[in-house]
Amino acid sequence: MRFANRMKYMEDKELLSLMELADAPDIISFAGGFPSPESYPIEDIRNSFMKVLETQWKEALSYSSTSGFGRLREQIAERMNKNFGLNLTSDEILITTGSQQALDMTGLMLIDKDDVILFETPSYLGALNALKAYEAELVAVPTDDDGIKIDELKKALDYYKERVKLIYVIPDFQNPTSRCWSYERRKAFMDLIKDYDVAVLEDAAYSELSFKDEKEKPLISFGNDNGQLIYCGSFSKTFCPGLRVAWIAARRDIIEQYLLLKSNVDLSSSAITQRQMSYYLDHYDIDEHIKKITSIYKKRRDVMLEVISKEFPESVTYNVPMGGLFIWMSLPEGKESRELLRRALKEKVAFVPGGSFYPGEAKNNDMRINFSNSTEEQIIKGMTILGRITREYLEE
Amino acid sequence: MRFANRMKYMEDKELLSLMELADAPDIISFAGGFPSPESYPIEDIRNSFMKVLETQWKEALSYSSTSGFGRLREQIAERMNKNFGLNLTSDEILITTGSQQALDMTGLMLIDKDDVILFETPSYLGALNALKAYEAELVAVPTDDDGIKIDELKKALDYYKERVKLIYVIPDFQNPTSRCWSYERRKAFMDLIKDYDVAVLEDAAYSELSFKDEKEKPLISFGNDNGQLIYCGSFSKTFCPGLRVAWIAARRDIIEQYLLLKSNVDLSSSAITQRQMSYYLDHYDIDEHIKKITSIYKKRRDVMLEVISKEFPESVTYNVPMGGLFIWMSLPEGKESRELLRRALKEKVAFVPGGSFYPGEAKNNDMRINFSNSTEEQIIKGMTILGRITREYLEE
Repeated sequence: MRFANRMKYMEDKELLSLMELADAPDIISFAGGFPSPESYPIEDIRNSFMKVLETQWKEALSYSSTSGFGRLREQIAERMNKNFGLNLTSDEILITTGSQQALDMTGLMLIDKDDVILFETPSYLGALNALKAYEAELVAVPTDDDGIKIDELKKALDYYKERVKLIYVIPDFQNPTSRCWSYERRKAFMDLIKDYDVAVLEDAAYSELSFKDEKEKPLISFGNDNGQLIYCGSFSKTFCPGLRVAWIAARRDIIEQYLLLKSNVDLSSSAITQRQMSYYLDHYDIDEHIKKITSIYKKRRDVMLEVISKEFPESVTYNVPMGGLFIWMSLPEGKESRELLRRALKEKVAFVPGGSFYPGEAKNNDMRINFSNSTEEQIIKGMTILGRITREYLEE
Repeated sequence: MRFANRMKYMEDKELLSLMELADAPDIISFAGGFPSPESYPIEDIRNSFMKVLETQWKEALSYSSTSGFGRLREQIAERMNKNFGLNLTSDEILITTGSQQALDMTGLMLIDKDDVILFETPSYLGALNALKAYEAELVAVPTDDDGIKIDELKKALDYYKERVKLIYVIPDFQNPTSRCWSYERRKAFMDLIKDYDVAVLEDAAYSELSFKDEKEKPLISFGNDNGQLIYCGSFSKTFCPGLRVAWIAARRDIIEQYLLLKSNVDLSSSAITQRQMSYYLDHYDIDEHIKKITSIYKKRRDVMLEVISKEFPESVTYNVPMGGLFIWMSLPEGKESRELLRRALKEKVAFVPGGSFYPGEAKNNDMRINFSNSTEEQIIKGMTILGRITREYLEE
């Protein structure tokens, strides 16, 4: 069979094999980017499914409209308006089959071969892969603890000029580093990009997983009259991923372009999982649920940090995430996290080596370690093993 | 915003607006390609959801593996093996979010700009749109009541040579005409294509909706050692579309290429709807269910044919479908089915004008009329109205 040219870029099977790895029952896996199944509000979910299957089963088992279930789009608009002081209507919301689909459709909508996409560095592997498929050149923009570096971003925009079609960013507790952009950086970013005819995809998958009460406002709340901002939200991290319910918020004319593609890529998202989500939002308190899970995740982060401080050599550096799902750790330069993973897997511990998260030239000494999806016992056991293996590896 | 070049080809919003139209409560719609909601085995579905949410809720609400729920892939392989005398393993099955996703991913996997895709004519609008997005040239191959014309297919293959990457066919009760290829045509097709390095996408969405006991075997059962055949099956027409559960069956190495793309397009299909489907297949009799719905649809077809013979002018021609969901009707040359639709909508009746189903030059006097998704009363009322409007239009 003769494949499309783009398949040449699809060789990194890492995310795929990691998803399979995380399935093995005897592995302590810090590899996934998953919420903890124990945290699912199963009684409420069960009840919502039952109610939907009692009162709206014909609609729930048929095709949804392409844009998604109307009531759910209203609820999402209302919730964003309340949280961020926006004025969205349900016409500005499109339901997607997980936010991964939003990333893929954005590539389909915007990217021609040899266009340039700018990324924070490191960035989400699934976005790099999805967008690479449209044969863009992926360009890394240096990033520090406050977010993407504005002078470097300007440099890239001015260097690549109209070749730049899209900037992909995750301002809140990003995957993989859990970094959160400062207010000043957000403002400077918005001030800069308004002068360029370039789209910005704001991936907010982790934004509600904050360990503090105050949260930074999303980029879209700084104003979107020119339609430049495309916001992707998801219930996969705050609720559960098995429903595949996420959304795009964008100006109405942009949503209309997405709609043309949505009917191409899967006609519509599952009606029953959308209606379950909608029923849940109308009858239960998702904010209360999110408070509950973030307090669990914060506790797990603390346990993980404690084991790290005790068991890992001092030459290993890492951040203290204020939200999200990951600790980002770096081995000393010259050491390879893939080699460490090979050794860890032999002792039934998994994480993601950082190299795959770089859009351009990769650093190979980083690792992404998930703390949300393991019990405190698993964290203590797994991280103690990983600490020992790391010590042994660094002493070689 | 600067869109990708492909968005220029995405202008026909017809399918989209029809999906929206079909939503209006006071319309008698013969426009959709939907099974009848009254036919859903709701008690069994409800019970399956409950059982899954009791015994496997953690897995059902988490990410599925990229290839899909293992047991469901086994069940699908077993069922295809039993029905078609094949030897598929679950590794040769990939679960997709509806079979529309399989069409989109096939474009993504195979098609570069200016490649040629060959189609029966007319063909499924959703396939034309999805594949057009990859900037292929869509070429219509003349088709008669027995299927795609082999001499014309050979002519096209020899004319476009290696530009032809893909042939898209629906051998069973195709959308929109409900045509079913004869055994001889299937055999001749398979004999011809084995000499060309070209993939064949066999869309079997309607294949189980036969009104006769004997069914033709799918193309894939004629042998697929060279991996040329990609088979797409779906539960959307035989069971219900709201779950978005469908599948690709192909040789293992081809499935591996699809897997790379599946993690790009939506990571994985909904775990809970896959597990619901799997539970249903293990505990209930889907063949019995399909027998039940096809007997309902056959009755509705008969009612529709009876109204047509009484109420429509003799200059209107149509087929007698032996399965599937549609009657394909043609107005006399020179008359336009879009104009007829405009008039019908004023009287609250909808169908799909045929022009959109043509890959190349369109015929504009055809119409696709769905009989599965309306009650006998609605069929009598709606088709009587449509017959009168047609008479009036043709007399002008």
